[in-house]
Amino acid sequence: MIKVGIVGGTGYTGVELLRLLAAHPQVELRVITSRSEAGGAVSALFPNLRGFVNLAFSEPDPASLSRCDVVFFATPNGTAMTMVRELLDAGVRVIDLAADFRLKDAATWEQWYGMPHACPDLLAEAVYGLPEMHRAQLHGARLVANPGCYPTAVTLGLLPLLEADVVDAGHLIADAKSGVSGAGRKAEVGLLLGEAGDNMKAYGVAGHRHLPEIRQNLAQAVDGGGLGLTFVPHLTPMIRGIHATLYATLRKEVDLQDLFAKRYEGELFVDVLPAGSQPETRSVRGGNMCRIAVHRPGQGDTVVVLSIIDNLVKGAAGQAVQNMNILFGLEETMGLHSIPLLP
Amino acid sequence: MIKVGIVGGTGYTGVELLRLLAAHPQVELRVITSRSEAGGAVSALFPNLRGFVNLAFSEPDPASLSRCDVVFFATPNGTAMTMVRELLDAGVRVIDLAADFRLKDAATWEQWYGMPHACPDLLAEAVYGLPEMHRAQLHGARLVANPGCYPTAVTLGLLPLLEADVVDAGHLIADAKSGVSGAGRKAEVGLLLGEAGDNMKAYGVAGHRHLPEIRQNLAQAVDGGGLGLTFVPHLTPMIRGIHATLYATLRKEVDLQDLFAKRYEGELFVDVLPAGSQPETRSVRGGNMCRIAVHRPGQGDTVVVLSIIDNLVKGAAGQAVQNMNILFGLEETMGLHSIPLLP
Amino acid sequence: MIKVGIVGGTGYTGVELLRLLAAHPQVELRVITSRSEAGGAVSALFPNLRGFVNLAFSEPDPASLSRCDVVFFATPNGTAMTMVRELLDAGVRVIDLAADFRLKDAATWEQWYGMPHACPDLLAEAVYGLPEMHRAQLHGARLVANPGCYPTAVTLGLLPLLEADVVDAGHLIADAKSGVSGAGRKAEVGLLLGEAGDNMKAYGVAGHRHLPEIRQNLAQAVDGGGLGLTFVPHLTPMIRGIHATLYATLRKEVDLQDLFAKRYEGELFVDVLPAGSQPETRSVRGGNMCRIAVHRPGQGDTVVVLSIIDNLVKGAAGQAVQNMNILFGLEETMGLHSIPLLP
Amino acid sequence: MIKVGIVGGTGYTGVELLRLLAAHPQVELRVITSRSEAGGAVSALFPNLRGFVNLAFSEPDPASLSRCDVVFFATPNGTAMTMVRELLDAGVRVIDLAADFRLKDAATWEQWYGMPHACPDLLAEAVYGLPEMHRAQLHGARLVANPGCYPTAVTLGLLPLLEADVVDAGHLIADAKSGVSGAGRKAEVGLLLGEAGDNMKAYGVAGHRHLPEIRQNLAQAVDGGGLGLTFVPHLTPMIRGIHATLYATLRKEVDLQDLFAKRYEGELFVDVLPAGSQPETRSVRGGNMCRIAVHRPGQGDTVVVLSIIDNLVKGAAGQAVQNMNILFGLEETMGLHSIPLLP
Repeated sequence: MIKVGIVGGTGYTGVELLRLLAAHPQVELRVITSRSEAGGAVSALFPNLRGFVNLAFSEPDPASLSRCDVVFFATPNGTAMTMVRELLDAGVRVIDLAADFRLKDAATWEQWYGMPHACPDLLAEAVYGLPEMHRAQLHGARLVANPGCYPTAVTLGLLPLLEADVVDAGHLIADAKSGVSGAGRKAEVGLLLGEAGDNMKAYGVAGHRHLPEIRQNLAQAVDGGGLGLTFVPHLTPMIRGIHATLYATLRKEVDLQDLFAKRYEGELFVDVLPAGSQPETRSVRGGNMCRIAVHRPGQGDTVVVLSIIDNLVKGAAGQAVQNMNILFGLEETMGLHSIPLLP
Repeated sequence: MIKVGIVGGTGYTGVELLRLLAAHPQVELRVITSRSEAGGAVSALFPNLRGFVNLAFSEPDPASLSRCDVVFFATPNGTAMTMVRELLDAGVRVIDLAADFRLKDAATWEQWYGMPHACPDLLAEAVYGLPEMHRAQLHGARLVANPGCYPTAVTLGLLPLLEADVVDAGHLIADAKSGVSGAGRKAEVGLLLGEAGDNMKAYGVAGHRHLPEIRQNLAQAVDGGGLGLTFVPHLTPMIRGIHATLYATLRKEVDLQDLFAKRYEGELFVDVLPAGSQPETRSVRGGNMCRIAVHRPGQGDTVVVLSIIDNLVKGAAGQAVQNMNILFGLEETMGLHSIPLLP
Repeated sequence: MIKVGIVGGTGYTGVELLRLLAAHPQVELRVITSRSEAGGAVSALFPNLRGFVNLAFSEPDPASLSRCDVVFFATPNGTAMTMVRELLDAGVRVIDLAADFRLKDAATWEQWYGMPHACPDLLAEAVYGLPEMHRAQLHGARLVANPGCYPTAVTLGLLPLLEADVVDAGHLIADAKSGVSGAGRKAEVGLLLGEAGDNMKAYGVAGHRHLPEIRQNLAQAVDGGGLGLTFVPHLTPMIRGIHATLYATLRKEVDLQDLFAKRYEGELFVDVLPAGSQPETRSVRGGNMCRIAVHRPGQGDTVVVLSIIDNLVKGAAGQAVQNMNILFGLEETMGLHSIPLLP
Repeated sequence: MIKVGIVGGTGYTGVELLRLLAAHPQVELRVITSRSEAGGAVSALFPNLRGFVNLAFSEPDPASLSRCDVVFFATPNGTAMTMVRELLDAGVRVIDLAADFRLKDAATWEQWYGMPHACPDLLAEAVYGLPEMHRAQLHGARLVANPGCYPTAVTLGLLPLLEADVVDAGHLIADAKSGVSGAGRKAEVGLLLGEAGDNMKAYGVAGHRHLPEIRQNLAQAVDGGGLGLTFVPHLTPMIRGIHATLYATLRKEVDLQDLFAKRYEGELFVDVLPAGSQPETRSVRGGNMCRIAVHRPGQGDTVVVLSIIDNLVKGAAGQAVQNMNILFGLEETMGLHSIPLLP
């Protein structure tokens, strides 16, 4: 059994990690920390876990975390980087669900996250945990930067086009729509049901923290740079789900359906839909799955890719468990079989 | 492995049955029928099942159904009763998720459902499948009438009070709120997001089909009749969930918390919450669980019971699987461990 | 033109007051104060008002408020009571949309609101502004306590039964369901779309601040006390609307439909629906209207009253404008003609 | 007073027309027809209108319609074209809210709408009723083709860029998100709250009927053709509102904010927001308004325009009333002052 600790489990990625890990056959949940909720039962905060998770929150304690095989950070940005080195030194693997280790360039990170980075030397070691891109590097990794939700959906949707060099990489557009859980379990007026309900709006048009992360991913697939990406996220009145609608201009004739099918052949968590499909976000609600459809309207030179995930699963906790499975040499799908909930 | 057939799997109870049965370790899904969708892949209608259920819908065919060990009916009211006898004669067990066998009195059934009953003689044999009331009778039963969603929530909430004879059974009130999936996957204007969204209303105040069913359940717990129940269901703008708020007048002093705790001791799918709790429907979303809290506001003589379920799970498909487990001598919880989804 | 000031206009009752007053033909909006938003344009906070309200928020300033004819308080509980006396002394009329002057008994107020009352002597003078109960007293009043949302819906629904003395006043039940805007525009986790969406729960079962307010109203209609009321509010996943389902036990034979029709004859903002109706909350969305239906299921001795309002209009800002119209001798419906928005 | 008739008032554009026209100071509602609801009170179908509209639905009757000054068609596509000529011959003006007269080319119309056009000769006469494009032609028009909802939002958002010839007209992208009321009040499974709630999907990617309509509008602004537009509509879980996110590639340096401000200077129903704004759909809920913001992320060559409307008001009924006002020489804003409802 893998001994697991979670730091900061009071948000939506925390409860989702708990839901998945509690049902994982090779996991023993040992510690879950929260400064604000220390001493309280996990199931008092998250009543869905009542009867399934009997742990209480504890104060973050390096000693007890060090006795774990792996520690997940489900903390706000900037927390993991202050605690990771000690854990790594103690031989613990770390999977950070926040953004602390996602960008390779410390200066870029500091610019977007507005604080100095506490351990820029670890940025090089950290493996960006999108298994469909970096599976080989994940085997044996000590430190995993779990991808953001938008970057997961957008990267998986555009990757085949860029790797095959069939579109104009200089003018990519990602129009992404997210449910409110993507913003976290934060007491903010703009996320109230009375504000975000029955309403839609774009945000971060001038620049969103996931933009440099997506750019970094896509740039790896493009030889020699020249990447141009416009990314517009939207807040939609649903709880879970990301729908990324991606636009690119074709430069070469190609069988798009075949291109995507081949790229993701054998990938168990990427589902390339039949030609003509239009996936709906609820088809992955609660499931660790990215479903993708590719279109070429009117046989023109614009490719439209529809890429959907559950932001809390393939976009966060599910992908983290997938990464854990890889790190420890388990079946990659272990504990990730739960069927999406519809309706 | 238990060979399972489903008749009429195109509604919400159908897709939920498929979700649960596909993950059940002792079940082999053999047949799923639908006249309207025959020939089509199940996963084309229910995209959440893509990758998990590879069956296609077939025309209802007595021969192939007869080769099953158990057949679930997820059909409109009035269908199962025309097919059940042939299946029973062939040695197949039947669990009907519709209302055909829920009422013991054929005349009452015909009055509320507006059609003659096709096999009134089977009403006596059918076991009403609320395991927390009738577990003993379910062992070895051939024909199970799976309870309605409202009756499950209301009955479990009032039963301890009536069995202990501590309230005025003549003036019970059940104010129940249901998500729209309780009305089924039917193309009706009143269930559109544009109509039922951001809106609330009572319906069936003059009389709802679940009223005689609840009455029948509660009467079994009351010696000598005199049962009086007012039942007002409400349509609420959510997808899943029933919240039953139940009111009764105390006739005797009693430790209510203790009464409920004792009644449901050992029941794995009824969760009596600590005193002072107020359960929320999402705490059981996707889970086979009834959570109950009991209150006595101001220490007056009015008892308030809050009873919640997921109408599609403990109120339909989950309870049907629970019943199947009992019929076949399996662990009652087998295949029913999935943790509710929150948020 | 009536010169109007608003204190504390950054919540939902504030924006709704602004929407109604901006369209009122006899109102001149002079001042709207907010400490936190002082200097900012009202339309920057409430984008629906852009093009309709050109005011900016200002610091609360007794001098400028004193030059108004009437001042509305849309502040948290406990604010109005510290400012009212000075305004009254300056000859300004005051309509408080918070709870400071709703209870006649200072001790009861202090118990439920958890602070000392700043001007208990004004409680006697304040008129509880439910025009359908106290219209006569409102003419010429200086200080109006605008009713709470639940008390408005529940009181209007039960009043005819109690005034006519046809039910057991000792065992009244009010099961009330509210949209989230009733909780205000507050950054609280429990009100997030991710928490309150697709979910339902009861709250305040042990005691809610609106309970003594409703009791005070109903007691006025009952000779000699003996009033017993159980009040259970529920949070429902909608933005606006209250649906109160009220239960009482009949003591005398009476034509219920006729009783209600006669009681509210001539009332322009109470709509008694035809027998058999089941009102939906959206039928009053944005409108100053209470719609009521009365039922007697199965001709038994339980009366069921369905009473709906928009909590922000008839339950708050609309009723406040109605009160203002009465205070100033205007047509009671002036500025309150807007038709509810459906869908 | 203008005598008004409505044909087919049982859908969402019908109820919205009624809401607006009932409050219009120069309108006398004379006739509202519906074959299916003939004889029934309008307020029985649309309970928000109870107390405001006392008409009953009647069978469509050319004689009574001919006595009107103007007739609105709120019918399914293909109905108006069979009745319009007779009305025009009788001197009645016609505003069609369906698509019968929106496309100038009959062959294109027949291809997209799948039926022969009943009066192709009237296509030339019909004026496309987007006042911000065609106000001059609307004065004195007999027959108005009221624009579609998506075409209104997309056209107003792209027009300034195309008229000024500053973007690549060959690669325009319109990513549009609509609430479900845009699909009409139709009993379709896909529009149920249980299906469309808490869910998002694209539809019509291969081709949507509003595509040729938008193309026709934009082509009028582009000299010499070469127009290329990719249009992807999405169904979002809200009731009202369209959010169009529009992308174009800049070809010339230009002050975008100034360009939009100048183009819509004096337009009372187009609100160009301050630089940096991100409008939300609820800011126009119930109001006849298009709010537009223009962005240039990272000062690159991609322009992003955010354009929002209430699909039932500026995208349907409100625009129809605006057109009526123009036809009859009234103030263009008459009856259209109602302030959007927030929250």
